[in-house]
Amino acid sequence: MRAKVASVIDRQAVQNFILGVILFNAVILGMETSDRLMQAAGPLIVTLDSICLAIFVVEIAAKLYARGGGFFRSGWNIFDFVIVGISLIPAAQGLSVLRALRILRLLRVLSVTPSLRRVVEGLMNALPGMGSVFLLMGIIFYIGSVMATKLFGAAFPDWFGTLGLSAYSLFQIMTLESWSMGIVRPVMEVYTHAWAFFVPFILVTTFAVVNLVVGLIVNSMQDAHHEEDAEKTDTYRDEVFARLDRIETLLNERARR
Amino acid sequence: MRAKVASVIDRQAVQNFILGVILFNAVILGMETSDRLMQAAGPLIVTLDSICLAIFVVEIAAKLYARGGGFFRSGWNIFDFVIVGISLIPAAQGLSVLRALRILRLLRVLSVTPSLRRVVEGLMNALPGMGSVFLLMGIIFYIGSVMATKLFGAAFPDWFGTLGLSAYSLFQIMTLESWSMGIVRPVMEVYTHAWAFFVPFILVTTFAVVNLVVGLIVNSMQDAHHEEDAEKTDTYRDEVFARLDRIETLLNERARR
Amino acid sequence: MRAKVASVIDRQAVQNFILGVILFNAVILGMETSDRLMQAAGPLIVTLDSICLAIFVVEIAAKLYARGGGFFRSGWNIFDFVIVGISLIPAAQGLSVLRALRILRLLRVLSVTPSLRRVVEGLMNALPGMGSVFLLMGIIFYIGSVMATKLFGAAFPDWFGTLGLSAYSLFQIMTLESWSMGIVRPVMEVYTHAWAFFVPFILVTTFAVVNLVVGLIVNSMQDAHHEEDAEKTDTYRDEVFARLDRIETLLNERARR
Amino acid sequence: MRAKVASVIDRQAVQNFILGVILFNAVILGMETSDRLMQAAGPLIVTLDSICLAIFVVEIAAKLYARGGGFFRSGWNIFDFVIVGISLIPAAQGLSVLRALRILRLLRVLSVTPSLRRVVEGLMNALPGMGSVFLLMGIIFYIGSVMATKLFGAAFPDWFGTLGLSAYSLFQIMTLESWSMGIVRPVMEVYTHAWAFFVPFILVTTFAVVNLVVGLIVNSMQDAHHEEDAEKTDTYRDEVFARLDRIETLLNERARR
Repeated sequence: MRAKVASVIDRQAVQNFILGVILFNAVILGMETSDRLMQAAGPLIVTLDSICLAIFVVEIAAKLYARGGGFFRSGWNIFDFVIVGISLIPAAQGLSVLRALRILRLLRVLSVTPSLRRVVEGLMNALPGMGSVFLLMGIIFYIGSVMATKLFGAAFPDWFGTLGLSAYSLFQIMTLESWSMGIVRPVMEVYTHAWAFFVPFILVTTFAVVNLVVGLIVNSMQDAHHEEDAEKTDTYRDEVFARLDRIETLLNERARR
Repeated sequence: MRAKVASVIDRQAVQNFILGVILFNAVILGMETSDRLMQAAGPLIVTLDSICLAIFVVEIAAKLYARGGGFFRSGWNIFDFVIVGISLIPAAQGLSVLRALRILRLLRVLSVTPSLRRVVEGLMNALPGMGSVFLLMGIIFYIGSVMATKLFGAAFPDWFGTLGLSAYSLFQIMTLESWSMGIVRPVMEVYTHAWAFFVPFILVTTFAVVNLVVGLIVNSMQDAHHEEDAEKTDTYRDEVFARLDRIETLLNERARR
Repeated sequence: MRAKVASVIDRQAVQNFILGVILFNAVILGMETSDRLMQAAGPLIVTLDSICLAIFVVEIAAKLYARGGGFFRSGWNIFDFVIVGISLIPAAQGLSVLRALRILRLLRVLSVTPSLRRVVEGLMNALPGMGSVFLLMGIIFYIGSVMATKLFGAAFPDWFGTLGLSAYSLFQIMTLESWSMGIVRPVMEVYTHAWAFFVPFILVTTFAVVNLVVGLIVNSMQDAHHEEDAEKTDTYRDEVFARLDRIETLLNERARR
Repeated sequence: MRAKVASVIDRQAVQNFILGVILFNAVILGMETSDRLMQAAGPLIVTLDSICLAIFVVEIAAKLYARGGGFFRSGWNIFDFVIVGISLIPAAQGLSVLRALRILRLLRVLSVTPSLRRVVEGLMNALPGMGSVFLLMGIIFYIGSVMATKLFGAAFPDWFGTLGLSAYSLFQIMTLESWSMGIVRPVMEVYTHAWAFFVPFILVTTFAVVNLVVGLIVNSMQDAHHEEDAEKTDTYRDEVFARLDRIETLLNERARR
């Protein structure tokens, strides 16, 4: 029975049907944002959404039944499970955020389409290699936030009143958005030497970001380099060694004769 | 007759004449933007523009006649055909946009100059390899737009009132233009936790863009690497194999003797 | 005695304890920024901070004793010494900046954690190779500042009144923050041709920054390329030579016989 | 006589003296921007500046005499000649721009210091390879300027009134500075579909800039790759061929015996 369910789920036609439902559902959820359409055909849209959700629930239940505990061993299954689960939480109590999160179902396209799956996995694989630079960035941001809060918090409570506000403002400054005209020039009117904090902060964080990108490039390059060249080179080297071996064997045989 | 027309069109002198007309036409169309020049010599400028257009029409008609159905097999020919065609649509009915599109004729420089043609083809060739990342970006933007419209549409109709407005605002935020001072800080005054939507959005889209660029670099690198090294390496390997072959043959011949 | 102290300090458990104190101290210093927490438990927080500081002082004193003059031969030791030293300067006289600098102690995480230490050393190693481009940037900034001060200082004293203000404004312009709407458009209302100074300045500095990044990428690439490929290639080449040697020896021996 | 002058100029001590004068002059010209210093010691500063200028004039005159017509064959000499020449033009008639250009003399550091000279030559060498992309950018900007002037010039004369103003505004938009909040949103209030012009413009120009950078990286990489690997590889290949030759010769000799 389990094997039968599993074979049905894995069929290409079923996968394509699910992909179709995901895309159809995305359109439906897009329509929900239009007041005009909701007034014209609100109940229909809501019903179609519920049907899509029901199909997802059935699919995931079938998968859970077919795979059993193994279901949760794949990151993508957990991903699907959480995304569909979010939609099942009753959002009636004014938690409009939960309702907005429903569109995340469209992300299931990633788990269903192999080519997109590979792109996402590629992006994810790049992350661990950047772990220590991320950690470094975290330390810089924490230090920067504490210093900014202590130095400028009293005079600029909206920007640097708490650690959280400071971290947000420093993130904005790192992206270089309105850092000078919007933040640092006003601050410098009160604390003349504020630039001595902000300019080094910009230089250090920008340098760290550039290094993240450089690391990404070098890693991608090496992966690409390997996959491709290594095989060809190895074949060549094996061939050279095989021929040199044959020559040596010939010579040794003759020497022994 | 056809062959004769074709040989005339393909002559270098004719090509250079067409290039000259394109550049002259570009200057004429630039002059049209100046009120002072139009008042002084409006009719002359318009007449010269019409003459240029007539030359293009004759050229394309000749090409169409010479090549027949084969004309539309080249993307560049279709490109020329559309660009000249746009200028022929009567723009009298206040469609000033069509009149503005006439300057696109300058793009014919691309189809006429081989070196620019190659640059554009190079840029175009880079696009398909980035297909899945583009698709991913599209999905992220659609999800982001639906969520932003549902979450902030009611309070900020100018920025997030419809899916289209949200997509535009999110594009602006992705380019980091005034994202914080212009958009997110005002939004946070109403929805305190809005940063929890926008900051991850910025991180994810920036990361995707960085990956697009990294992909471009790795691809260009490999192409450059191949064209150049591969040939030299292959010649070397062939030479090594040839010499080892000769040595083996010599040894085998002697062994048989 | 010295050797004994040194062996205690270098023990992994002691290192881990110090790391724990650094992280605990960072949390304490973060808490100090919260008015609510300081009102509730101010004396406790200050006391805990002092204890952490005392531990650092003892650790550094022990290291100084154990290593003697050799202590200052390591850049990381000097780094620790300065950071802890800053916290010991009495900050009672309204020098709130010194108090804010205390959070720099968290930077000791870098000197204590080997993996972060390597990242920072990697970033530092990238700097000298960029020395001449930095020097070039310095020259461009100095020239730009003198010119901007002479040209626009009289009309815009807030932005270009002195060399320092000009340098800051030019740094802002280099980061492209509000360069046009915020600075250059207002300046152009007084000096129509101001763009002829600022646009080339942007192009030149951006080009220099891009070249810095390109240099970083090329360097990282080469380092990565070397570490990895070089060894494998060398082994292969040595093997090829060894075999060719053996073949030649065999032939020569036979020739002599 | 000529040879003697040339040998004096090329002496290291003279070169160092000139470098010292350039740096001293840069400080002097920096001091000129300070009203306080000019009031305190204005005549002294102006005199010192004149002395520096006199030294440069003597140096260049000596070089001209020593090298004769060959002087103008080096780009760096022409560079020095023009820079010093600018300072000699009488700037009394209110041409304060000429006075501001005097600081360009500091650029002579580039021509005098070999390491900076090489950096600048490196940057310059990167330019020709990007020629066709620059040409493409020029075409895109010209087309964009004509279209923007025709479409939005009437309603926004400050931004898009003439070809020049449009080109400047499009440059600002390409750098992403205030493109949306500052320019496109106001324009969209008059022309609702203006985004259909500006968003593609941003995508196309950004893509072109990214390609410029990618081209730079690939070129630098190949140069670095060549200089280093090529020599080692060639030595290796020559050695392999030499040994295979010896083996073949040995075998052939024996075959003939």
